[in-house]
Amino acid sequence: MNKHKLFTKNSKEMKHSAIGELLGTIKGGEFISFAAGVPASEFFPVEKLAACAEDVFTKKELHLLQYGDTLGLYLLREKIAKRIKEKFMTTVLPEHLLITTGAQQGIDCCARLFLEKGDLFVVERPTYVDAINTLSYTGAEAIDVSLDKEGISLDELEFVLNKNTEVKLIYVIPDFQNPTGTCWSLGRRKEFMDLVSRYEVIVIEDNPYGELFYGANTMPSLKSLDKKDQVISLGSFSKLLSPGLRVGWIASSASYMDALSMVKERCDIHTSNIDQSIISAFLDKFSLDDHLLSMCEIYKRRRDTMAEAIDNLMPGCRYNLPEGGLFLWVELPEHINCMDLFSKSIEKKVAFVPGTPFYIKKNDFSHLRMNFSGSTETLILEGIKRLGEIIKNY
Amino acid sequence: MNKHKLFTKNSKEMKHSAIGELLGTIKGGEFISFAAGVPASEFFPVEKLAACAEDVFTKKELHLLQYGDTLGLYLLREKIAKRIKEKFMTTVLPEHLLITTGAQQGIDCCARLFLEKGDLFVVERPTYVDAINTLSYTGAEAIDVSLDKEGISLDELEFVLNKNTEVKLIYVIPDFQNPTGTCWSLGRRKEFMDLVSRYEVIVIEDNPYGELFYGANTMPSLKSLDKKDQVISLGSFSKLLSPGLRVGWIASSASYMDALSMVKERCDIHTSNIDQSIISAFLDKFSLDDHLLSMCEIYKRRRDTMAEAIDNLMPGCRYNLPEGGLFLWVELPEHINCMDLFSKSIEKKVAFVPGTPFYIKKNDFSHLRMNFSGSTETLILEGIKRLGEIIKNY
Repeated sequence: MNKHKLFTKNSKEMKHSAIGELLGTIKGGEFISFAAGVPASEFFPVEKLAACAEDVFTKKELHLLQYGDTLGLYLLREKIAKRIKEKFMTTVLPEHLLITTGAQQGIDCCARLFLEKGDLFVVERPTYVDAINTLSYTGAEAIDVSLDKEGISLDELEFVLNKNTEVKLIYVIPDFQNPTGTCWSLGRRKEFMDLVSRYEVIVIEDNPYGELFYGANTMPSLKSLDKKDQVISLGSFSKLLSPGLRVGWIASSASYMDALSMVKERCDIHTSNIDQSIISAFLDKFSLDDHLLSMCEIYKRRRDTMAEAIDNLMPGCRYNLPEGGLFLWVELPEHINCMDLFSKSIEKKVAFVPGTPFYIKKNDFSHLRMNFSGSTETLILEGIKRLGEIIKNY
Repeated sequence: MNKHKLFTKNSKEMKHSAIGELLGTIKGGEFISFAAGVPASEFFPVEKLAACAEDVFTKKELHLLQYGDTLGLYLLREKIAKRIKEKFMTTVLPEHLLITTGAQQGIDCCARLFLEKGDLFVVERPTYVDAINTLSYTGAEAIDVSLDKEGISLDELEFVLNKNTEVKLIYVIPDFQNPTGTCWSLGRRKEFMDLVSRYEVIVIEDNPYGELFYGANTMPSLKSLDKKDQVISLGSFSKLLSPGLRVGWIASSASYMDALSMVKERCDIHTSNIDQSIISAFLDKFSLDDHLLSMCEIYKRRRDTMAEAIDNLMPGCRYNLPEGGLFLWVELPEHINCMDLFSKSIEKKVAFVPGTPFYIKKNDFSHLRMNFSGSTETLILEGIKRLGEIIKNY
């Protein structure tokens, strides 16, 4: 029996996440890795989370060990509703929040609700690899629209929307985008919402990094500027607290919540009650703001250390210093191909993610996505030194 | 903007899980519920799970709070591989186990890998509602094949497979099936595997109840009888330990594991490391066998109490006493319609799941699915008494 013959058409076309695959290649070695988009492991508030876990279990709320609500724990949804209003002016009722198993599942649920073969979706160029993979797995096809310093290009987007009536969904990361670090200006956000309000199109606003900023401040979400109920906002505790606890959310509205909850039911019935409760207890007992304040200080130093090291040690490499998020998006000098550099750097036990997979056409070979949050300053300096030596030898 | 216009065709056809919807209607009241398929809340081993959670957090294994492996924690996969070999003769390497966010996600991942519009899949008649929903959400269509006391009808299955070359997948629950409680005989298992080995078709063997038996013993899995690498087995800790921790698994083989892991990556990257670690610690520190031994005693008594009460108090109602699982599948006397009985019983604050949604054609109105594991014997007696009074008044 030819096993793969039985796969669906979309399944036959699946490829591994470039990031996952690259991380696979570096397992087991003494690597300095700037590859994954991870929070700093050594600063996870493990004692506090332990106290929260103890709280959850010693209260003996047996219902938490039982099947739970598909939408998630109401108490947690209340706290998220309050938080995203304070931080991003996103106004939703707890009833219109759906807890997901990480924000990746938020992308997946929206993809499955809105996209099918024959549909098109728009993404920024470049954009988050695993969003492209998840959105494409529906059979829909991607169109990319370029990104400038202020956000997605509106002229280009308007041209795309006028030309392609099959566009059902626009996926964007307006806050410290992955991979470029771009934060859309307030003006661009408003103009974007004005533009899309003229089309029958859903906007997925993915915001995993909005609270990780170094100099800038939080910005009003697209959802807060949404007059026609077009925007669905995704969020997550993965980058703020811990991705090992898989808790994200979809902030939506009455129009979509019933259908989204049916999709969620088909996915995994509901998200872990224990993970939800631990995070809910953390928000009660401790200050997530204080934790983020100290994390942002650490990440800012790491960003600056990496930026300075690139200036000093990687000749011909350019970047825009991002005001938040987890990445430097580095442009290589013309004579260096990022995939080639990747192979060479793996030999020197340094890893990053080549820029190529972040483009739907996979035709850019001049960028590196460099994570600065996950490595100490000492390791950042050593890693950049090694990369610099390779670059000097080209 | 007409919001629903933007939904995909499959999304427009979605309906809520009958069970979820029914459970919704009984919230907040002083209900006696035989509706949900739940383990007994009052016997969750909460102190032991608390000790496991403490263990996980005090060991300060920070990598557990970080992103994890898409396949799941290797240590847990090793333990599951050992366990399913002992219990069901299922032989898989830990490398061919994928941890899922509950077994529902196992169904969903398989559905997405194999099924698309134009395909057919076979289910037992009747079968688990949420499996029908998840498998159908791919656009594929269901065909049902009748179930007798020994398992799925092979004559009928052969006829269906010969007539419909579009059948890509067969979904079955051979151990204490939901809703009927049927446990396939060993003979039927072997003949089934002989039959399906002549077709290019995948078998999904869902086994959430196999370790909950009262008199019978565990049976060899279909996967243990699989010579052509056609069977993918699903399992879960939901009914054995706690469904609030969302941990299930897919036991597969090299042929499918790579693709299944890519589907999983698109769903939610990976299952909660914390939930996985708590369960892994439980398997180290305590005896799941001992826990199940005492739970099976409790469930057996509840089953017998319910059966006896039906005999005594619900005239004209019949059932086959299941040797395991969580349900009695009750056939009503001819003059009573289960949907009508449901409305009347809700008034009397007793709930069950009408049999109708377990049929893909929704044309059976003569059955009730009655969960006995989730209610005390006192509540079982009171609930059946109330149902009996309604039935006597027809």
